[in-house]
Amino acid sequence: MSKLPNVTTSIFTVMSKMASEYNAINLSQGFPNFPVDERLTDIIARLAKENVHQYTPMAGFPPLMEQIAQLVQKSYGRTIRPETEILVTAGATQGIFTTILALVKTGDEVIILDPSYDSYESPVLLCNAKPVRVALNDDYTPNWETIGKACSSKTKMIIINNPHNPTGKILTQDDFSHLERLLSKHPNLLVLSDEVYEYITFEEKHISAHTKDFLLNRCIMVSSFGKSFHITGWKIGYSVAPEHLMKEIKKVHQFLVFSVNSISQAAISQYLEIVDVNLLGKFYQEKRDYFQKLLQNSRFELKPCEGTYFQVASYANISNDDDVTFCKKLITEHGVAAIPISTFYSDHKDQKLIRFCFAKDNFTLEAAAKKLGDI
Amino acid sequence: MSKLPNVTTSIFTVMSKMASEYNAINLSQGFPNFPVDERLTDIIARLAKENVHQYTPMAGFPPLMEQIAQLVQKSYGRTIRPETEILVTAGATQGIFTTILALVKTGDEVIILDPSYDSYESPVLLCNAKPVRVALNDDYTPNWETIGKACSSKTKMIIINNPHNPTGKILTQDDFSHLERLLSKHPNLLVLSDEVYEYITFEEKHISAHTKDFLLNRCIMVSSFGKSFHITGWKIGYSVAPEHLMKEIKKVHQFLVFSVNSISQAAISQYLEIVDVNLLGKFYQEKRDYFQKLLQNSRFELKPCEGTYFQVASYANISNDDDVTFCKKLITEHGVAAIPISTFYSDHKDQKLIRFCFAKDNFTLEAAAKKLGDI
Ligand SMILES: CSCCC(=O)C(=O)O
Ligand SMILES: CSCCC(=O)C(=O)O
Repeated sequence: MSKLPNVTTSIFTVMSKMASEYNAINLSQGFPNFPVDERLTDIIARLAKENVHQYTPMAGFPPLMEQIAQLVQKSYGRTIRPETEILVTAGATQGIFTTILALVKTGDEVIILDPSYDSYESPVLLCNAKPVRVALNDDYTPNWETIGKACSSKTKMIIINNPHNPTGKILTQDDFSHLERLLSKHPNLLVLSDEVYEYITFEEKHISAHTKDFLLNRCIMVSSFGKSFHITGWKIGYSVAPEHLMKEIKKVHQFLVFSVNSISQAAISQYLEIVDVNLLGKFYQEKRDYFQKLLQNSRFELKPCEGTYFQVASYANISNDDDVTFCKKLITEHGVAAIPISTFYSDHKDQKLIRFCFAKDNFTLEAAAKKLGDI
Repeated sequence: MSKLPNVTTSIFTVMSKMASEYNAINLSQGFPNFPVDERLTDIIARLAKENVHQYTPMAGFPPLMEQIAQLVQKSYGRTIRPETEILVTAGATQGIFTTILALVKTGDEVIILDPSYDSYESPVLLCNAKPVRVALNDDYTPNWETIGKACSSKTKMIIINNPHNPTGKILTQDDFSHLERLLSKHPNLLVLSDEVYEYITFEEKHISAHTKDFLLNRCIMVSSFGKSFHITGWKIGYSVAPEHLMKEIKKVHQFLVFSVNSISQAAISQYLEIVDVNLLGKFYQEKRDYFQKLLQNSRFELKPCEGTYFQVASYANISNDDDVTFCKKLITEHGVAAIPISTFYSDHKDQKLIRFCFAKDNFTLEAAAKKLGDI
């Protein structure tokens, strides 16, 4: 009867709710707990009194679209046309959903890597299309051979997430060479590139789809200000796509939401004039390093983290429980909330791995680490 | 190739854009041009400095959901449970789209009245379902006989819009009796009730789906704060549905947008504690009366307007142009923008009717009426 029979309450909802019920330190759902930049909250407070309360144009508030084009230019050297190639969305989630709904048809197949963030499958199913899950290698790099084998004439789209939630892995130049070869064999294959953590990378620089000429005509890049400006609640994201694809995406957007929150769009457009997104990587690298240091004498074994604000950890030395059970006990017995990695796998296989969000003030990280260190 | 081959740029976008290009008075797209209540903008300005910038729970900010339940209780005497029966959406448009996507399946039919607002057909088509348009009577009342004939075992949903955009018509107790009889013959038929203008009715009081016991278990009621609080840009609406339907709607909502703008939700929840929505009808009745009076010596013939902030007018005495051509000339030659009524008909039939939005300050209404009176 249900169109999404396998969907249950999202693990992010379950864990955040349980964290607050048990008054646990919440390192589960990905959101920062520190204050937003005062310059941005000043802008909002001032804008409240201005004329920014009615519908913006459907595809976005024009000054924001202009700023997004400049941001892409500055960050990646790519010139995009705001009028035809940008869409402002109610968060990257809406960008992803709208893109899939506009471009994927009954019977199409869509390649989704495994593990991956939980937002990709349901829109594909709602299009009467088939999600084809392809396992990442053990080190979470894409396995281009199996991806190649999974592609056929039915494959409409491949979804990449770079930097990758939950594993923190980023794609290399070599990965993009493989992708280019794959696309050359499948002339109709589209790429949906979820880059919401684009400004949160560490030792290695992020390689955006924007920088690859072979993608320009066939890639939809989705991002979000929620992650970049510590405002996950605002739900303002954007998509960039070539005009022929964006035309179809806008048709769906028009009826799905029409336009998005006007005050937030106006505020972000002004903030983009003064903020330096390049400071974000360093900011979160310090948090990652600090969190790793705090946990170095714990019994958790930390995995490499190249980007995002998530740290994957193995608890194999601590418990034989499956990861969902372990996470629940972590809340009820130890007062810390995390996300079980099995959630991100299509078959929910347990690997004794959990994910911590380190987008928290140092006091919170210290308090959590103390509890985790005592286990 | 396109999944929505017949969708072109929305008439609201076309006319608003043309209005601004020609510096015309914009009575086309429905949005107010007067300032928002200072109490509400004060709340936003204050909240900017508070901790309201991260994800709210998926279905909505709990204090807002509580206030919505109280509003429905006060307005209609219906008790609803916030946790299971309310969803906060990015505007009513997202509420409508999400409802249809969650509940309508391949091959289903959906009854849409004709004329009607332009947001209902596309989501039905994206479900591989069939919109079945049924003409309203000449006085814009529903023709229950033809509606009855259009219903079959394939009919999944009927969409009603009360008060009705663009005609300003409201449903009567008699209409609801007919609806009840129809539903008793079709046990699986659902009702989607778009009531975004619920607080904008005049001589006759609005009859909400909330007040009809026979609807409680099979109706999704959709509304919006954009119309009620003069904040169309905020994009905050809500849906009310029985738990078994809401469960399915939330599954789609979770992947479509996850949650909606946190600051706006917090602000509206506080504003609902102090605002009296019952003043709205009187406020707009005065605008309607004033606008009608200003036009009484013009050559436009005004139709009855029972609710909404739209006035339908015939220009049959003025021109033989079709309504789209007439609206374009109205902008370029007379400096006033309106919406052609043919837009709202599935066959786009011209009836020499156009729609004015009177949600404007008196100065604007006067300036527009002067230009219209000179024609
Ligand atoms: C939209 S809730 C999930 C937030 C998030 O990005 C994550 O925790 O992975
Ligand atoms: C979302 S644009 C249309 C606004 C509106 O409700 C109308 O003008 O009918």
